[in-house]
Amino acid sequence: MGFCSLEKRSLKMGRGRFITFEGGEGSGKTSVIPRIASRLEADGHETLVSREPGGVASAEKIRHLLLSDEEEELDRYTEVLLFAAARRQHLVEKIIPALEAGKIVLCDRYLDSSLVYQGYASGVGIEQVREINLFAVQHWLPDRTFFLDIPIEVGLARIAQNAREENRLDQKGRAFHEQVRNGYHLLATEAADRFRMINADASISHVEENIYASIREMLVL
Amino acid sequence: MGFCSLEKRSLKMGRGRFITFEGGEGSGKTSVIPRIASRLEADGHETLVSREPGGVASAEKIRHLLLSDEEEELDRYTEVLLFAAARRQHLVEKIIPALEAGKIVLCDRYLDSSLVYQGYASGVGIEQVREINLFAVQHWLPDRTFFLDIPIEVGLARIAQNAREENRLDQKGRAFHEQVRNGYHLLATEAADRFRMINADASISHVEENIYASIREMLVL
Repeated sequence: MGFCSLEKRSLKMGRGRFITFEGGEGSGKTSVIPRIASRLEADGHETLVSREPGGVASAEKIRHLLLSDEEEELDRYTEVLLFAAARRQHLVEKIIPALEAGKIVLCDRYLDSSLVYQGYASGVGIEQVREINLFAVQHWLPDRTFFLDIPIEVGLARIAQNAREENRLDQKGRAFHEQVRNGYHLLATEAADRFRMINADASISHVEENIYASIREMLVL
Repeated sequence: MGFCSLEKRSLKMGRGRFITFEGGEGSGKTSVIPRIASRLEADGHETLVSREPGGVASAEKIRHLLLSDEEEELDRYTEVLLFAAARRQHLVEKIIPALEAGKIVLCDRYLDSSLVYQGYASGVGIEQVREINLFAVQHWLPDRTFFLDIPIEVGLARIAQNAREENRLDQKGRAFHEQVRNGYHLLATEAADRFRMINADASISHVEENIYASIREMLVL
């Protein structure tokens, strides 16, 4: 293998892209991600779909601590640290290897979820939560983040309709969901270079089209 | 209960003191702490002795993740976050209530251990590890920290003599233990207001005397 093919290989390896999806309850992230993945694969891009803790054993164990409904309650700051620890381990074991192999990684929630849910809506403070999460991810920020925006009523109505098992967040009040949406709007303005706001109050194929157009544009650049 | 007794109670409640003990392997922290506690109690001070994770159920679970010798290896950054999470939970559930009740808390290792072992000796970086730990403890820094200083050979010889079960840290090389000692010296200089360096290459009663004199002076002020 000569210099040229090595060069080519390293160029290809550098072409992995890290794309994250963010949004409140019922915004449709989970439905649209596999559709995006199929289209990327059909267009010849190796793709990895993941979501924290992503089947990584140690990250699963950490998340288990967070979600277990036992008598003792975890402090909010402890929660921030545990989410960040699980994120780190998922990143190191699963996302970085895929990016280094040149894949396109589609991840359902990443550090922005902590900034919004724990930092902004739960009141620990965005700046403090950002510091912890920048430590956890170091320089591995997403190349692009799609924020699927939807009015609170529409999102919650979708959830009710799907009769999904309610989780803790769904049970929180309307004010909390408003805070989450405001938090995402704030981040989308702050990090406008990587954030793309997608109107998620639309048909899934419409949402898919908008996202895919943006990804295609990114891949050409 | 009139105003005066309330006032008195709140004064007394404000008099808790948070004292931590730091040092390398074989420095004798664990032997001297109960002796200090006995003297404090004999002098009429309510005292709590603890060490992380301190029997706090959720902190124990977090530490278990760190110490379990399973196939998968935790990333160094994940470890920093998990130690900080366990520290936070121990602080909130055990140390803060004791301090608020006016007790003197003696804690075997606290955030300085992470700064030295993970930040300095393992190379993550003191500043980054400090940020994570200041998030975890917020304003709950120790009032006084005793660093029991001992030459590496003396400390390791003590451990060998005691035929204690070796743990991971004991097995690390001499260079690592040198780094730990250097790290503590660095912190003791940086935070000279709360650090007191104690020569631990001495009889235990001598070490005890030095520490107790410093505590007595602190309690009078």
